[in-house]
Amino acid sequence: MNSAGAAAAAPSWPRCDRTRAWVALQGHYEAHGRDLDLREAFARDPRRFETLSFAAPEVFVDLSKQRIDLAGLRFALDLARECGLEARRDAMLGGAVANPTEGRAVLHTALRAPSAGSGGGSDSGLFSREVHGVLDAMLAFAEQVRARAAAGELTDIVNIGIGGSDLGPAMAVGALQADQHPLLRFHFVSNVDGHDIAPLLGTAGQGRAQAGLDPRKSLFVIASKTFTTQETMTNAALARAWFVQRAPEADLGAHFVGVTTNLQAAAAFGITRTFGFWDWVGGRYSLWGAVGLPIAIAVGEAGFRAFLAGARALDEHFAHEPLERNVPVLLGLVDVWNRNFHGFTSRCVAPYHQWLARLPAYLQQLEMESNGKGVDLAGEPLPFATSPVVWGEPGTNGQHAFFQMLHQGTDVVPVEFIAVREAAHGYADSHAKLLANCLAQSQALMLGKSEAEAAAEAVPTAAKDFERARLARHRRFPGNRPCTTLVLERLTPRTLGALVALYEHRVWTAGALWNINSFDQWGVELGKALANRLLPRLESPADAAGSSGDAGGLDGSTAGLLKRLAPKT
Amino acid sequence: MNSAGAAAAAPSWPRCDRTRAWVALQGHYEAHGRDLDLREAFARDPRRFETLSFAAPEVFVDLSKQRIDLAGLRFALDLARECGLEARRDAMLGGAVANPTEGRAVLHTALRAPSAGSGGGSDSGLFSREVHGVLDAMLAFAEQVRARAAAGELTDIVNIGIGGSDLGPAMAVGALQADQHPLLRFHFVSNVDGHDIAPLLGTAGQGRAQAGLDPRKSLFVIASKTFTTQETMTNAALARAWFVQRAPEADLGAHFVGVTTNLQAAAAFGITRTFGFWDWVGGRYSLWGAVGLPIAIAVGEAGFRAFLAGARALDEHFAHEPLERNVPVLLGLVDVWNRNFHGFTSRCVAPYHQWLARLPAYLQQLEMESNGKGVDLAGEPLPFATSPVVWGEPGTNGQHAFFQMLHQGTDVVPVEFIAVREAAHGYADSHAKLLANCLAQSQALMLGKSEAEAAAEAVPTAAKDFERARLARHRRFPGNRPCTTLVLERLTPRTLGALVALYEHRVWTAGALWNINSFDQWGVELGKALANRLLPRLESPADAAGSSGDAGGLDGSTAGLLKRLAPKT
Repeated sequence: MNSAGAAAAAPSWPRCDRTRAWVALQGHYEAHGRDLDLREAFARDPRRFETLSFAAPEVFVDLSKQRIDLAGLRFALDLARECGLEARRDAMLGGAVANPTEGRAVLHTALRAPSAGSGGGSDSGLFSREVHGVLDAMLAFAEQVRARAAAGELTDIVNIGIGGSDLGPAMAVGALQADQHPLLRFHFVSNVDGHDIAPLLGTAGQGRAQAGLDPRKSLFVIASKTFTTQETMTNAALARAWFVQRAPEADLGAHFVGVTTNLQAAAAFGITRTFGFWDWVGGRYSLWGAVGLPIAIAVGEAGFRAFLAGARALDEHFAHEPLERNVPVLLGLVDVWNRNFHGFTSRCVAPYHQWLARLPAYLQQLEMESNGKGVDLAGEPLPFATSPVVWGEPGTNGQHAFFQMLHQGTDVVPVEFIAVREAAHGYADSHAKLLANCLAQSQALMLGKSEAEAAAEAVPTAAKDFERARLARHRRFPGNRPCTTLVLERLTPRTLGALVALYEHRVWTAGALWNINSFDQWGVELGKALANRLLPRLESPADAAGSSGDAGGLDGSTAGLLKRLAPKT
Repeated sequence: MNSAGAAAAAPSWPRCDRTRAWVALQGHYEAHGRDLDLREAFARDPRRFETLSFAAPEVFVDLSKQRIDLAGLRFALDLARECGLEARRDAMLGGAVANPTEGRAVLHTALRAPSAGSGGGSDSGLFSREVHGVLDAMLAFAEQVRARAAAGELTDIVNIGIGGSDLGPAMAVGALQADQHPLLRFHFVSNVDGHDIAPLLGTAGQGRAQAGLDPRKSLFVIASKTFTTQETMTNAALARAWFVQRAPEADLGAHFVGVTTNLQAAAAFGITRTFGFWDWVGGRYSLWGAVGLPIAIAVGEAGFRAFLAGARALDEHFAHEPLERNVPVLLGLVDVWNRNFHGFTSRCVAPYHQWLARLPAYLQQLEMESNGKGVDLAGEPLPFATSPVVWGEPGTNGQHAFFQMLHQGTDVVPVEFIAVREAAHGYADSHAKLLANCLAQSQALMLGKSEAEAAAEAVPTAAKDFERARLARHRRFPGNRPCTTLVLERLTPRTLGALVALYEHRVWTAGALWNINSFDQWGVELGKALANRLLPRLESPADAAGSSGDAGGLDGSTAGLLKRLAPKT
């Protein structure tokens, strides 16, 4: 399937704020949402946890510490129905043009469908064969690479890509270290800044370079759909030049592989092996296909198929589970509730697993690029807020950095905890401490500590000279701060696949209620165009000030900064 | 100097919102701030850039793309004066108890004062000798370590610490790769999660572990003031056990060093060499002293002294420059303006230098732990907002992820760009592209693109089937989004020192106007206490549900999650 074969645009559905359910939800918020106190809610309802926690495939989700009650969730489900969420979901999964500004279907779910499965309309068999053809070829190649590593021929994999061609593989390879090929190291180069690739090539520093990689034992994956992305092609050219200075150019094809649809440009580069994309897979959803090659090399064919199967299990859940138990939908509804009713402007993602360190960066793209839009599908400016800021660091690290603000700051920031029951190491004591901290933080955010409780506690030694009553006010925690906890049994290719798919569908849910196009990204265009205009002025000293020495049509700030940053004569 | 020798508590100064200047500033905001359009402001005032950009030592700061005018800045300066900012600064730098809830002076600036310099009151000579005694010993040790590396005896430095004992050294060592010892690799372990240290010890994964470090060629730095920090001591114990299984226990003293004041506990651990702290240096300001040991090992004695000298130059500027040209003060005032008048809830830090990748995480602690407080010094709840969320990723990476939301999202997020004129590599083309992108993004945020401009442009191929007029609305950028650009000539120990000190004083400025204690962190206590209570229930299956199988006094969510996360019988 390609865009030409996609079904006609879906019928238009009401925007959330124009429904009767929205008014009802607003009323519920005023009466039972704004002032909902979690401590009272748990005291009042001993079954609150059972009622407001949900199981998706591989991921258990506790929403009971969110400032919403079951009635609120039911009003939100009414909203979802009135907005046609189910029909829109089915249309998207069925291959409709869910990305109308770019005239494209949105079918990353097809990348994880079983062979010859559904998802492509009348030409589904052909479609499935095409998807699985690329998948099989990529996995066979990944296994060849792993065999070369086992034979001592390869030691380092360097992925050169940016955005979706970087964050997904980097996040997943980092997460799946327990399953990773033991003889391979993985590197991810994305930034056009030469300081990103230079340490790998051994060219950083002033004459005292660290040793770089061995070109004869390195494999570069160049991931760019068009093979024209500025950052990626700049870095690819540096890697290529470095390689041919150190190894026979004829060996280039064995050390560079392309993830691209531009076969001609790849061939001109010297790449003989490429794996393709389709235009119905957006960059931030592309790790399930050829962009996932580094993941496949890391965890092997079986691991990558498990990763897809985990996502597929979530897809089935999303497609078929009734809305009141449909976990990605419920998460998306709570996101809308928090953003549009409580007015929270950011969400902190705190994975209590060090190997998920790059998950917040991955989710920043997934959510903020998808839903960071200011107009609805019709192009009308939205009168309500869309994507929050998504940010975070792994716990327990964050506890020793910014958690102070989460507990005692003036703004409420919902936190999303991610806990994994079983570790991939044998340090039981470390793991018990990690999980105790995760639970304790979610508990502390909710419980808080009153001034009276603080006053009744022993005074810390450091504060012995400070007035006792006043100190209690400094040691007070307001509490009633909301969080969600996600629980995985283990961090494996399968569970990671499910977790990422859960996030994808959740982001889509909020975007669908807001009636925005979650699949375009026009907001990246302007900066690109302006950068191309400024570039000549930064390439040589003569051009920096413009030929007449004036600002050259630029605003004063840009002109002034340009003079400071341009190369000196 | 210690807390007993500190001067009496400073006189109390008015909180910002109780001054006449605050009312005036509010009035100016209503008249000339809320609706300030940057494009018009630049058109109206050709000298806006010159007027609103400022030079601090090593750091140039452009505030002209912030939504404030010179008159607004002057009203803010009046506010600073009415709040006694200068006197409070002088008191802090002079050793007063600037951290009253903990009864401590705040003298991290003393760590970068020249030998026998000022800063300690009447006992300044003794004080300076004490500071420089530790500094000299630490730098001599760093040089010994470097000599051992040069002789091939050491290859890997592992810092085990968390919060201030991790983020500062990790950020700085990452930033200073050009000056780094070429034969040493640096690792930072902080998380109590065993997945953090396991890969270094070669114990991750299920029987297919990657090779770990060579214990005979590794040096572990254990950084914990009290030598009791849960995370740090847990990881230190794992490293110690791993070491003594692989090397003679008698060699432990040559491979473990302590950054601590608890000599007894360090000795019991087997550490013979320690470097000390003082209680007038908070954790998030501690990289200038012994906690900076990994930095000193990386860049050597001369490099570390340059790092201190850069910070010292900024301290002198902060101490003596009139407020109207005092760059950290001006940055702090704009932060207050953005937070309390414009109501922006987060700030995105975008370093256009890959080696500053960990700067946002470092700044999260510096700013959010310092100013994420809800009460003033008197313990009164604050009626205005304090620390925003600070977050970010390096440019150009962020452009391909979350910048969509910065440009077209519904919330305004001020961005802080950091640009470095000269690179530490020879890739001129990469560097020109990097800087062009940095400038273009700040330009694009301000300029935006109108619907008419978008309509006049050629339609992108992908959008050819979409209604043209409607597309222009999707491709519109509102513009007038504020940013600050910081420019360094090069990224060196000296300029990094100045940059970090600039941030420190800026954070203090906002905290002083808000009348909060920027130097305590009571908000971390509750979670620690609750974690200790939960820990026994996660250590063995029997305890998870409590002896009676009920919730054991816990809220339903915590009890339910505990059951899911506890080890299985």
